[in-house]
Amino acid sequence: MPDTLITTPSSAFLGKLRTIVGDKGMVEDAQARAFHETDWRGFTMGRAAAVVKPASVEEVSAVVALCSEHGVKIVPQGGVTGLVGAGVPVRDGDEIVLSLARLNRILDVNPTAYTMTVEAGVVLQTIQETAAAHDRYFPISLGAQGSCMIGGNLSTNAGGATVLHYGNTRAMVLGLEVVLPDGRVWDGLRALKKDNTGYDLKDLFVGAEGTLGVITKAVLKIFPRPKDVATAWLAVPAPKAALELLAGARIAADDNVTSCELVHELGLEGIIKHIPGTQRPLQGRHTWQILMEWSSTRPIPEDGESGMRARMEAYLAGCMEKGLVDDAVIAQNEAQARAFWHIRESHAEAGRHSDPACSFDISVAVEKIPAFIEACNAAAETAVPGIRPRPMGHMGDGNLHYNFSAPVGVKARAEFAPTVKVLDRIVHDMVARFDGSISAEHGIGSIKLLELEHYRSQTELDVMRAIKKALDPKGTMNPGKVIRVDPSEAVREGTLMR
Amino acid sequence: MPDTLITTPSSAFLGKLRTIVGDKGMVEDAQARAFHETDWRGFTMGRAAAVVKPASVEEVSAVVALCSEHGVKIVPQGGVTGLVGAGVPVRDGDEIVLSLARLNRILDVNPTAYTMTVEAGVVLQTIQETAAAHDRYFPISLGAQGSCMIGGNLSTNAGGATVLHYGNTRAMVLGLEVVLPDGRVWDGLRALKKDNTGYDLKDLFVGAEGTLGVITKAVLKIFPRPKDVATAWLAVPAPKAALELLAGARIAADDNVTSCELVHELGLEGIIKHIPGTQRPLQGRHTWQILMEWSSTRPIPEDGESGMRARMEAYLAGCMEKGLVDDAVIAQNEAQARAFWHIRESHAEAGRHSDPACSFDISVAVEKIPAFIEACNAAAETAVPGIRPRPMGHMGDGNLHYNFSAPVGVKARAEFAPTVKVLDRIVHDMVARFDGSISAEHGIGSIKLLELEHYRSQTELDVMRAIKKALDPKGTMNPGKVIRVDPSEAVREGTLMR
Repeated sequence: MPDTLITTPSSAFLGKLRTIVGDKGMVEDAQARAFHETDWRGFTMGRAAAVVKPASVEEVSAVVALCSEHGVKIVPQGGVTGLVGAGVPVRDGDEIVLSLARLNRILDVNPTAYTMTVEAGVVLQTIQETAAAHDRYFPISLGAQGSCMIGGNLSTNAGGATVLHYGNTRAMVLGLEVVLPDGRVWDGLRALKKDNTGYDLKDLFVGAEGTLGVITKAVLKIFPRPKDVATAWLAVPAPKAALELLAGARIAADDNVTSCELVHELGLEGIIKHIPGTQRPLQGRHTWQILMEWSSTRPIPEDGESGMRARMEAYLAGCMEKGLVDDAVIAQNEAQARAFWHIRESHAEAGRHSDPACSFDISVAVEKIPAFIEACNAAAETAVPGIRPRPMGHMGDGNLHYNFSAPVGVKARAEFAPTVKVLDRIVHDMVARFDGSISAEHGIGSIKLLELEHYRSQTELDVMRAIKKALDPKGTMNPGKVIRVDPSEAVREGTLMR
Repeated sequence: MPDTLITTPSSAFLGKLRTIVGDKGMVEDAQARAFHETDWRGFTMGRAAAVVKPASVEEVSAVVALCSEHGVKIVPQGGVTGLVGAGVPVRDGDEIVLSLARLNRILDVNPTAYTMTVEAGVVLQTIQETAAAHDRYFPISLGAQGSCMIGGNLSTNAGGATVLHYGNTRAMVLGLEVVLPDGRVWDGLRALKKDNTGYDLKDLFVGAEGTLGVITKAVLKIFPRPKDVATAWLAVPAPKAALELLAGARIAADDNVTSCELVHELGLEGIIKHIPGTQRPLQGRHTWQILMEWSSTRPIPEDGESGMRARMEAYLAGCMEKGLVDDAVIAQNEAQARAFWHIRESHAEAGRHSDPACSFDISVAVEKIPAFIEACNAAAETAVPGIRPRPMGHMGDGNLHYNFSAPVGVKARAEFAPTVKVLDRIVHDMVARFDGSISAEHGIGSIKLLELEHYRSQTELDVMRAIKKALDPKGTMNPGKVIRVDPSEAVREGTLMR
């Protein structure tokens, strides 16, 4: 599939860009440019003709209109922390990177209405901290929160460990402002909880990974700040028991189970070994462990009796009697709770020090998790003798990060690469058989584009293509990501290795 | 604007329809047909060429494909309880009504996964009762719940009195099956809590009022059943106090405020007068009253101390001290709570016995409610001396049913009609000035189509039109509703009077 349509923008075009964004808005230093062209995992797939950082919605609009006029393609970009290659160039020299980093103002915080209005380039952690400063809470939290930007979170519909209770980023959105592919600005920046006036445009732009327009502002929901939090680390006999434990916990906790994360012994082992200062929360080895958190917005009662920790203790005691829990420890203070969370969040970092491994971001209906794990492990172990599966993740959402360590003895990533291809098909076929999703929270980007075409029905692909063509008839918004309008279009997906 | 394109379907076409749905699927009795052609308020705007009731998705698909082939237009229909003329014919003889009433099976209930899979024609109350039979809860509840169907609730993104806590119908949807305008079936019937694989198609069909396709099945979320419910009737000095009351209540109730409804003295007066068996919850008259409910999924604690009622009592006592509440009564048992709700739900029925009145379904950002009421009342009273505004409704969502009773002495609806036109512009202009919505929960249908075109930006209308054209290029799905592709298309909106 030759890339015949690539034409590098002219220097006249680049001059016009500069006129719009000014010298401060042109990223020209080679090292700075490399940052914007390189995926979080360190891979480069394409080179941008220019990297621009407009300072206002008006400048974004003018840049996009100019690109539309000249047929120049645009890669909208936030904090460059995505995991599927959606926010970096995948072509050579006919795309510009449009960074939202300078649109970084918090425009309004309204604790009474529980809303916050922000520009797309605000860093996620800044939003969390701003909410906390107003005795409020913004629940989206991710490993990358110190550098990822809300525009990117919105464009990928980011998930994380609190989706169970609060929903993913989509659920936080009341209104959006979006620069459309022709440069016009759609002002959907409404702070309305109810609005049944025509098609739900905002949910179309959320999760579209920048292929339908550039999100520039959002009105977000914020929440009461949790004030009584109980955090437990548990060993369970099997995933099925974990599921029962969770179903009962929702009732016992007044529907306040805010996280329920599955941890696999093999993953924990790697973390204890490689991450300084970590230690096992429980004695001994347990294949299946759970990090569970209950959060209440009421202050801890003074008698301590009906507080979250007491209620959790009573509930877990009952679960141990029923054989749903083998062992458990409830964090006695915030430091211990943070230590539990540090373990959970160190999976990615530990992976960098361990044997070659690969990871799949999949989901199935919650109740199918036990059967899925059994079937998927069996299929992988049959096809790849010695493979070491260690599924973990957001069990309460049906979302597993299905990780595999290479068989003992395989030390080189290159040696493991062909096996990853085999596992791709095994895991994703199994997901299809269980009516699941091949991307639960990371998105499609460029690296899963062909997988999506492989697994989704022709009807569904046709509907997506029709929408893409309708909103971006010139095909200038983030091409090569999510969906190809023309199935013969070249795709660069193989260059990114897990 | 002449309706030049209307052509009545041929008898050959009708014969083909009969072949698909069988005799049982053709509604031919005149009285039965009239039911399907008549709006809930009793108005008829158009006549259908045929009314069909397919018995399966396959039959729906075949009917839609046939219509697409012949260019015959389709009005998808549920329980015919809509309030904006979206589910009835608005043309003469070139549309068929496609009733989903025979697709009425509950396909699956999964209490562990908190999901239920249903066909579009299941009556809402059946879903509520099925959930309750499994110790679960389906929160959408409406006056029409005994006859409205979930397919219609989904297509209008219905709201109601629990949106504050649970969200509207959109928030209940995990997956959908939709028959597209060309008859193909989109199988998006996934029971996944997380799925970031491309564009969010389900949210496009939810709330599209049948203009983009026919929803035939849905996977719905269900919830833990509330077991400890406290219901209070309050008098507040002003809407602003009600807002502060609510903001604090969210925290005091552990984020379990499930309803917060504003009631106006004038509305209450009409109910007490016209609805047998109702009585004032509080002594004396209070312009602004609130029905508030807190619901916990934990059983009532045996010591009674930390139960919802005790917590609500403590909270309200504090509010009275601060002057946020003038008077309050907490229901002492379920019967009393039901009596409170009966008052709330009798507004529409009471309206049928009272002086001429009109109603607007609007929303603004929650914190703007007090200023909006002040400004809107003032504008209406200036323009129409003697007009009696009595805004009420889902205050916690920023959604008011902004009702007006005609000035004292105006007894005939016809006499009030010109005033309604004046109020239309006054209320909707004020909504626009407050960045609100002219349809918070009822939808656009045919009666607000021109209003939407008047108030939404050209950019937003263009995006909606592009989507409509992309998914329904032949324009056969529910034309004349929500959005016109061609602004010169004839519209029948004037025949429906509030």
